[in-house]
Amino acid sequence: MLHNNSTTGPVRKRAVVLLSGGMDSAVTFAFALRDGYECFTLSIDYGQTNRFEIDVSRRLSEMMGAKSHLVLNLDLKKIGGSALLGDGEIPKGEKETQVDDIPATYVPARNIIFLSLAIAWAEALGAEAVFIGANAIDYSGYPDCRQEFIDAFGKVVEVGTKSGVRGSPIKVMTPLINMKKSEIVRVGHDLGVDFSLTTSCYQPAVNGKPCGECASCLLRKKAFREAGIPDPLDYTN
Amino acid sequence: MLHNNSTTGPVRKRAVVLLSGGMDSAVTFAFALRDGYECFTLSIDYGQTNRFEIDVSRRLSEMMGAKSHLVLNLDLKKIGGSALLGDGEIPKGEKETQVDDIPATYVPARNIIFLSLAIAWAEALGAEAVFIGANAIDYSGYPDCRQEFIDAFGKVVEVGTKSGVRGSPIKVMTPLINMKKSEIVRVGHDLGVDFSLTTSCYQPAVNGKPCGECASCLLRKKAFREAGIPDPLDYTN
Repeated sequence: MLHNNSTTGPVRKRAVVLLSGGMDSAVTFAFALRDGYECFTLSIDYGQTNRFEIDVSRRLSEMMGAKSHLVLNLDLKKIGGSALLGDGEIPKGEKETQVDDIPATYVPARNIIFLSLAIAWAEALGAEAVFIGANAIDYSGYPDCRQEFIDAFGKVVEVGTKSGVRGSPIKVMTPLINMKKSEIVRVGHDLGVDFSLTTSCYQPAVNGKPCGECASCLLRKKAFREAGIPDPLDYTN
Repeated sequence: MLHNNSTTGPVRKRAVVLLSGGMDSAVTFAFALRDGYECFTLSIDYGQTNRFEIDVSRRLSEMMGAKSHLVLNLDLKKIGGSALLGDGEIPKGEKETQVDDIPATYVPARNIIFLSLAIAWAEALGAEAVFIGANAIDYSGYPDCRQEFIDAFGKVVEVGTKSGVRGSPIKVMTPLINMKKSEIVRVGHDLGVDFSLTTSCYQPAVNGKPCGECASCLLRKKAFREAGIPDPLDYTN
């Protein structure tokens, strides 16, 4: 088990961890804890169809030992432009990973927005890093999950924030960026992540049960299968 | 007067304009209209001490002819780290423009967050540009108002968004970036901006009257004085 609730001892380096409740962000959180960071988890309630994510993130934060968990409300539904925000159907079946075939579940500028908010909180907390579970392999065609994007964003932090101008820019950490999904399952398993707490489904049933049919569920199932580790989730299909 | 309410004619190119209600964003809006864009104005209600800004932005959008005005709520007070968010005193008097002496009114990552939201809306609207009133001269020491930052952000859009990956990244337009404040007043005056509608004060009185003493009021007063144009605002001091 991962616990991080100690209130004594020397001042620890701090990190903000973006937490969506999915397995990638849970494993990323475990990496940050393993690296010795005092973790402040951040979840964005942006009007996603899967609102269940926020409860899952709260539970993960408690169980894994975040110093504190912040939920920011930001109504991206007013902006729209994504199936995850109620514009159009969430596609069934596994998507091809093609840069030019960006899936309907792409949310405009989502990781730019989320990273900006994480950097803001990190500056206010005096944290030295921000962790995000971006993953370029099996990344479903999202441009904002690639190393190229993370590097470009790092440059923005360097020249556009107080921490950057003062010579110690907040680092953007992406421990999973080059891992296959099955590798993420294995590493998370080794780090003690309780995958039964995580959710990956784009559109779970009212009782929170994952559909088992959307691109995200299919990717997850395949990852556990390939890793040879049983997926503790109970799928509808 | 600037009007842009036409519902006939060919499809016009679209832009999202970040509007704070201050004179810089109003003049920037006038530039976007002059350049022929159909303008969608975006204001962020982020818990700033000067809540009056949102009403001013609404009025400016109506009077100048925005196609639509969107207010997004984002409670940055939960993040803190700025005098503008209630952490510490808003300083009186004119600040030095020094990069290493970042003022107490700096809001962590503010322009990164605002630009990200503007880019997201622009993608959803199929807009080709985002306008922001960033200004590097007389910029009060904000790192996220410099050309270097805008360039870095442009690279993020190029590699991290759908528009970028598809080869037509949304442009970030900063018509004021190299203007002195007095020049902004003159150009705005020539473009027909009604400066009586704009607010610049960090901490206006309950009736909306600007204090006349904060760094922002002092910069504005000086700009009008240097431009030789009377400031229509009625200051408390």
